[in-house]
Amino acid sequence: MSKSTLQDLFGLSSPLRLPVIQAPMAGSQGSALALAVTNAGGLGSLPAATLTPDALRAELELMRLQAQGPWNVNFFCHQPPQADPGREARWRAALAPLCAEAGRPAPEGPAIAARAPFDATVADLVEPFRPPVVSFHFGLPAPELLARVKSWGSKVLSSATTVEEALWLQAHGVDAIIAQGLEAGGHRGIFLGDDLTTQLGTVALLPQIVRAVELPVIAAGGIADAAGVAAARALGAAGVQVGTAYLLCPEALTSALHRAALQSAQAQHTALTNVFTGRPARGIVNRAMRALGADGHWGGCISHQAPAFPLAATHWAPLRAWAEAEKIGLTVVGPEGALATGVLAIRLGEKPAVTARASGVPLRATWSALRSISVLPMPRPEDSRYSAPRVASQV
Amino acid sequence: MSKSTLQDLFGLSSPLRLPVIQAPMAGSQGSALALAVTNAGGLGSLPAATLTPDALRAELELMRLQAQGPWNVNFFCHQPPQADPGREARWRAALAPLCAEAGRPAPEGPAIAARAPFDATVADLVEPFRPPVVSFHFGLPAPELLARVKSWGSKVLSSATTVEEALWLQAHGVDAIIAQGLEAGGHRGIFLGDDLTTQLGTVALLPQIVRAVELPVIAAGGIADAAGVAAARALGAAGVQVGTAYLLCPEALTSALHRAALQSAQAQHTALTNVFTGRPARGIVNRAMRALGADGHWGGCISHQAPAFPLAATHWAPLRAWAEAEKIGLTVVGPEGALATGVLAIRLGEKPAVTARASGVPLRATWSALRSISVLPMPRPEDSRYSAPRVASQV
Repeated sequence: MSKSTLQDLFGLSSPLRLPVIQAPMAGSQGSALALAVTNAGGLGSLPAATLTPDALRAELELMRLQAQGPWNVNFFCHQPPQADPGREARWRAALAPLCAEAGRPAPEGPAIAARAPFDATVADLVEPFRPPVVSFHFGLPAPELLARVKSWGSKVLSSATTVEEALWLQAHGVDAIIAQGLEAGGHRGIFLGDDLTTQLGTVALLPQIVRAVELPVIAAGGIADAAGVAAARALGAAGVQVGTAYLLCPEALTSALHRAALQSAQAQHTALTNVFTGRPARGIVNRAMRALGADGHWGGCISHQAPAFPLAATHWAPLRAWAEAEKIGLTVVGPEGALATGVLAIRLGEKPAVTARASGVPLRATWSALRSISVLPMPRPEDSRYSAPRVASQV
Repeated sequence: MSKSTLQDLFGLSSPLRLPVIQAPMAGSQGSALALAVTNAGGLGSLPAATLTPDALRAELELMRLQAQGPWNVNFFCHQPPQADPGREARWRAALAPLCAEAGRPAPEGPAIAARAPFDATVADLVEPFRPPVVSFHFGLPAPELLARVKSWGSKVLSSATTVEEALWLQAHGVDAIIAQGLEAGGHRGIFLGDDLTTQLGTVALLPQIVRAVELPVIAAGGIADAAGVAAARALGAAGVQVGTAYLLCPEALTSALHRAALQSAQAQHTALTNVFTGRPARGIVNRAMRALGADGHWGGCISHQAPAFPLAATHWAPLRAWAEAEKIGLTVVGPEGALATGVLAIRLGEKPAVTARASGVPLRATWSALRSISVLPMPRPEDSRYSAPRVASQV
């Protein structure tokens, strides 16, 4: 096994100082968090899946202007869903009782795909920015599109949830593989089949993928502190991808409701659910997941009624507004919050670094302490977007 | 966090030299493996759940005579199931096509509970042996029974699959908690609720339980080598419980069919299934799991039809015999093998120690190498039951 390090992979012009990737979390963060992480020495990630073309262009411009090291932009590459009016009607009916409780009109109209896969139009938009790293979720785009991305000099990452997917990604030309353990927040990256019982925790999945492939492997899922990084390294990871630990940072767009939930006992209970978008993702368990996803004995929070990804997301908007506005929403954590960003099965708020961050205590000391053992980078306040921008030398 | 070590806990009279517990694997091992592990410096475990009273007595007698260190006997403590003739009839019908294919008569007659929970009769049988350690799966027995076990001086272990279960076990008086990550082979120990989506991988579950309880925590699930032990220790484990790595030992009762499957590419694919006993357990994916457990989209190998544990096991016997006898059984790995013992999501046969063991090469050198870094104990040939028995000084 002679695998290059992440520093080798991403740091040719601007060394990646820490082998930590900030997980892209659509809906909960944008360029501000990505820049803070990149400028602190990790690899910051810009999630593009839910951005309009104008918003994506603006965010990429910020990344190009202010990043002082390598950065990543993340896209979904699911198959666009087929409309299924009957299924959608049943789904609207399933949501109606929650809407009635919220005093909102029942959902109407057809489901809309609010998350578009990477395509040639998006490639046209992204190409001028030549992102140092492009990561994909749910597999990879078509070969000609992937070749375009690689022609820009971008390094390509994608997530594997099984050994089979890791070998597939290696055969299709990625530069490194994210081993997404079952603990990971947000959408499962599963793309070969839809059998959730094949999904393994990090401690089992990671070493299997490390043994199976020649590429560097990045551990994701359940890692939020120095002990987790040490464990991942013991299991052969070249680096780690960390998401939830960043959700309480001031640079994140995490809603007040979601921040409260993350710091509550409720965050101890996470589960996979497909009720918010149609694809399984890990989020804090809430009443909506229980009401719509309880499909009987041993069933959990998976609904066989939910429309295909991403159509199931269409009719949640009124309930999200209700939950946010009326502050009774801890029973319905904003779907974007609980879902698109997800929540690792790690209790936040107990680790000194995270506690300090959450309570607004300046992080310099904690940052230094953590960096001294080469682990979790917590963005330093002076690296946030509120600092004077500096033009990056790269790209 | 001032937690005693496993050596403190189990080793007062006869020190436990290695913080490794051999997982009890009903159907795949008995006293021979348990003795080999105990006499090599770990904690060997005798699985009692499927033994008749006479067989249990004989095995306990062997443990008492030959163990040269602490040992463990493991019991199930599930609620006995209610008979449900209609459900059982549907289950027999579901199994009938596989039986037809095997040229066996379709299953008949009522389901039988072949696995009995720990009760006063079993306690009477066990008491004279005063096992140093007693472990339970699926919770704990009733308080008066647990008090009896503790009155013998036995240390008590049980498995937690959630933080809630760990706190429950601590409140009910266990001496240490096994954090059973989702990677673990065999039955999930889940006993508070039946929602499988709450089940977390070791890397997430272990540190949460370590933080939540005052007791020593033993990591189980996905650990089969030195790297896994190092990762578990980084996450706060006082010790580890290892099962599948022992299945290829000559002292194990693992069937030839199961040994072959463990060393095949098939072992890369494991899943949770309830089709063999009625409770979810991890095993190598086989055709029976796919045929009976595929409950639709995102469903995997869980059947909503399976009778309650352990009644679903009743009618598998003819198929197991078929698979074993006709050597076409890699499509139906003997249920006991794939199920009661389960298979960690670790590829066996790639680690030098395991390879050497599987190929029959004497293990002394490997054993020494492993012991020198205080990790996985591989039983030494001279410690097997084929050695001259020595009377243990303890108990």
